[in-house]
Amino acid sequence: MVYIYDTTLRDGAQTRGVSFSLEDKLRITRALDDLGIHYIEGGWPGSNPKDLAYFNEVKKLNLKNSKLVAFSSTKRKGLKVEEDANIQQLVRTEVPAVTIFGKSWDLHVTQDLRISLEENLELIYETISYLKRYFDEVFFDAEHFFDGYKSNSEYALKTLKAAEEAGADCLVLCDTNGGTLWYETEEIIDAVLREVRAPLGIHAHNDSDMAVVNSLIAVRKGAIQVQGTINGLGERTGNANLCSIIPNLVLKMGVESIPKENLRKLYSVSGLVAELSNRPHPVNLPYVGENAFAHKAGVHVSAVEKNPELYEHVKPESVGNRRKIMISELSGRSNIVSKAKEFGINLDKKSPEVKEVLEKIKELEAQGYHFEGAEGSFELLLKETLGLTKKYFELKGFRVLTEKRSEDEEAYAEATIKVEIPEEVAKERGIKDRFEHTAAEGRGPVEALDRALRKALEKFYPSIKEVKLTDYKVRILNETSGTAASPRVLIVSTDGKRKWGTVGVSPNVIEASWLALVDAFKFKLMKDDEEKRGRNG
Amino acid sequence: MVYIYDTTLRDGAQTRGVSFSLEDKLRITRALDDLGIHYIEGGWPGSNPKDLAYFNEVKKLNLKNSKLVAFSSTKRKGLKVEEDANIQQLVRTEVPAVTIFGKSWDLHVTQDLRISLEENLELIYETISYLKRYFDEVFFDAEHFFDGYKSNSEYALKTLKAAEEAGADCLVLCDTNGGTLWYETEEIIDAVLREVRAPLGIHAHNDSDMAVVNSLIAVRKGAIQVQGTINGLGERTGNANLCSIIPNLVLKMGVESIPKENLRKLYSVSGLVAELSNRPHPVNLPYVGENAFAHKAGVHVSAVEKNPELYEHVKPESVGNRRKIMISELSGRSNIVSKAKEFGINLDKKSPEVKEVLEKIKELEAQGYHFEGAEGSFELLLKETLGLTKKYFELKGFRVLTEKRSEDEEAYAEATIKVEIPEEVAKERGIKDRFEHTAAEGRGPVEALDRALRKALEKFYPSIKEVKLTDYKVRILNETSGTAASPRVLIVSTDGKRKWGTVGVSPNVIEASWLALVDAFKFKLMKDDEEKRGRNG
Repeated sequence: MVYIYDTTLRDGAQTRGVSFSLEDKLRITRALDDLGIHYIEGGWPGSNPKDLAYFNEVKKLNLKNSKLVAFSSTKRKGLKVEEDANIQQLVRTEVPAVTIFGKSWDLHVTQDLRISLEENLELIYETISYLKRYFDEVFFDAEHFFDGYKSNSEYALKTLKAAEEAGADCLVLCDTNGGTLWYETEEIIDAVLREVRAPLGIHAHNDSDMAVVNSLIAVRKGAIQVQGTINGLGERTGNANLCSIIPNLVLKMGVESIPKENLRKLYSVSGLVAELSNRPHPVNLPYVGENAFAHKAGVHVSAVEKNPELYEHVKPESVGNRRKIMISELSGRSNIVSKAKEFGINLDKKSPEVKEVLEKIKELEAQGYHFEGAEGSFELLLKETLGLTKKYFELKGFRVLTEKRSEDEEAYAEATIKVEIPEEVAKERGIKDRFEHTAAEGRGPVEALDRALRKALEKFYPSIKEVKLTDYKVRILNETSGTAASPRVLIVSTDGKRKWGTVGVSPNVIEASWLALVDAFKFKLMKDDEEKRGRNG
Repeated sequence: MVYIYDTTLRDGAQTRGVSFSLEDKLRITRALDDLGIHYIEGGWPGSNPKDLAYFNEVKKLNLKNSKLVAFSSTKRKGLKVEEDANIQQLVRTEVPAVTIFGKSWDLHVTQDLRISLEENLELIYETISYLKRYFDEVFFDAEHFFDGYKSNSEYALKTLKAAEEAGADCLVLCDTNGGTLWYETEEIIDAVLREVRAPLGIHAHNDSDMAVVNSLIAVRKGAIQVQGTINGLGERTGNANLCSIIPNLVLKMGVESIPKENLRKLYSVSGLVAELSNRPHPVNLPYVGENAFAHKAGVHVSAVEKNPELYEHVKPESVGNRRKIMISELSGRSNIVSKAKEFGINLDKKSPEVKEVLEKIKELEAQGYHFEGAEGSFELLLKETLGLTKKYFELKGFRVLTEKRSEDEEAYAEATIKVEIPEEVAKERGIKDRFEHTAAEGRGPVEALDRALRKALEKFYPSIKEVKLTDYKVRILNETSGTAASPRVLIVSTDGKRKWGTVGVSPNVIEASWLALVDAFKFKLMKDDEEKRGRNG
């Protein structure tokens, strides 16, 4: 059995540019628990008030799989354990396990802590033996262990032994600077195994692109705990990526760890953490990246449909990901047909409709459109081309103004809009005035436009009120051509029942937003109609 | 000696969303040659006209270090080698080396190629022995070798032997699906070494997060050629990343390969390829990422300044990267002092100015500012607080309008602006009218605003004409709160002599862009003044 120890909320939160709110931390905790992670390191309660608040709040979650862990350093020199505020904060968390990190590299002891080597051993021993009175499990993170071993192997081993004698439940070998190559990991762990008997753990950083393999090597050598983060978040180049480690362990090495069926949640946990860390979700992540099972080349696609094993190392579904047959310049008619089938539409590969859809897609892609993440826009495009949806409204014009009257005054945004609904909708709904001309304000121009459009449409289609925008992203295509670059706007909407993505591209960011907004509302109206037809027929 | 074989231009060009122009390919070729890459796989001349044009053009570059390689598959069944158009295209490239890929997995032979196992061996033998008459070196890429070995080891080895007998100069073991774990790589290469004598190479994909270690294992076992791509570009999760492999080989394993001093160019080659592939340069890349040597935590920073080896696995300069001391919430007074020193300003850590700067930064960061990548804005903030620069102009108001008059008409953007310059500037320059009120159009609102502001400022400060915006990025903070999310705009500008980044944050994207634009122009004017003072004093 190998226990997975997640430190996304502590070491991962050290990532440049990442700052989790308390609510974010709780959401991630729930997702990790649901995935079946064995230990969740929630934070360092002594280091900041946010982590302290987390440990108070998290108790209410009633986790079903995960044990919470609090983190801290060894006590400070010269203080009794009972007097050390950091250690006392730990005790107050009342979680089942704690991790204490201590120095195992002699140079760090003398140059950074500036204490004697013997004193450091005492800190480790005293801190751990004290905490063993309060916690079921106490883990020792031997910071810089591999560098320490290279510098002074005898001393590095002594730090492990001090922790072992104090009763540590797991000795976690840390490659804190991430500089250790795989064969060094093998040699050093072999040496450790000759000297200590307590169970081992591993905590690797990725500075040499070795974090995943170093972690798995430790497991092959008998380690029972693997520390890492979702998506490999962490300082510098990041920590060992659990999204690679877990599937390698479970699907390939056949090691008992997280239940195999839970791995189907991995992809969505990875996406959630990327979203909450406000960083792009790298498309090329092994197993969980958007491109991990994307097939581009045409020949490739036909072969992969014949026998996926020829081109895929594992089944995409096993980690909750899916095979992507790309809607791209290279894609052909058979891709359109298989996409349409997902919407319940059977098309003939040789039909003129398929050709028309393909041509439209090619034209839009040349403008910078991408339909990945914007399945709503794609479904609309397909159904509009096939005549399976109607025109719900027509734009008769909009104006969006941003004004800033002086340096000290905040900018002001206002939008005016005029729309017209088709005659048959007016008749059907008994509406006399088919036009609506209205205006709204917003903190920014897109918000103003969104509000004005809703106001106009709600008059005709009250269900528009149910639509909430949950995500708004701008990507600049050709970022290097300055402010003349072309923005692509991606919007995710929900009406409580479903979630859909829509896209717009234009050299004008307002127009790009407009196009994505329009698709968002049209999609909602189309779905409402489809539901109604479903009920009636 | 281990030879580095770059396939960024061929396998890397298969990355989803990447499309290199001919000019891009030539620029990358020059950069790889300059870095000292031994082999550059330029493309598959039989597969598309762009690759063919490349081989014609590249001859004019007179490469000093690299040998060019053309790529193709084994000949088609039923044709003589002389009749196979693909093979004949290869011959016409007149490059010194070619790589031929052939099937080594029995299932691929029977299910994908649909020929007999024996026929496949003949294709390999005939293609390679024919090409040996025309080329100094012929390499054999044994596609899917590791999966093939697991499926039918005897047959997989036969394909290598066929290539060896035909005179192949290197047998390249490919992990095409990227599914092989490190210990399997070790076992399989050991088995191969017992059966063949020709030199071995390795070509790994990263689907299991193992591409780098699998490549280096092959080297430890004696392989002389390592194939990979810059930044790990490539289909799905990408190819083995040469930016990790080369420093690991040269700086850590002490293997003779690319000259150590050339590694200083690695960081810039990595950046160039990211730029030309129109993808973000991942900040967490080992060795070459922006964050690879970035230190965040405060304690950490003071320690790293005492002795960098305590926290860095290699010297950042060794790969052309640099240490970054981050201006962040966690940073304290000593970070401000060391940043100011970079601008030639000596500050006392305990001075009220340092406190003031720190407080301003904290306030701005709470609003969503980030000064990483916006050193221009940071320098302005620092010098404004210290009274080391002046106010160049004041905004008396702007209005930006976007209008779309109907669904078929393109959106139109217009900006009006009014600025005032201070009295002393007017006196100094003999200007009577201190106001300028003007207007401009643009394809989008930000472009219109940029043009209007330039028009207004150029009247007073002609050197503004030298400023070009080279990069414009929008990131939405709190993307999940819909269109009310707060945009952060990052602009990079140049005046031909220097390059600087500026930043603006506001709930209104136009205002955020405005703030970044204003900093961009103020920075230019400040630098002009500093230069003038330097010359006069």
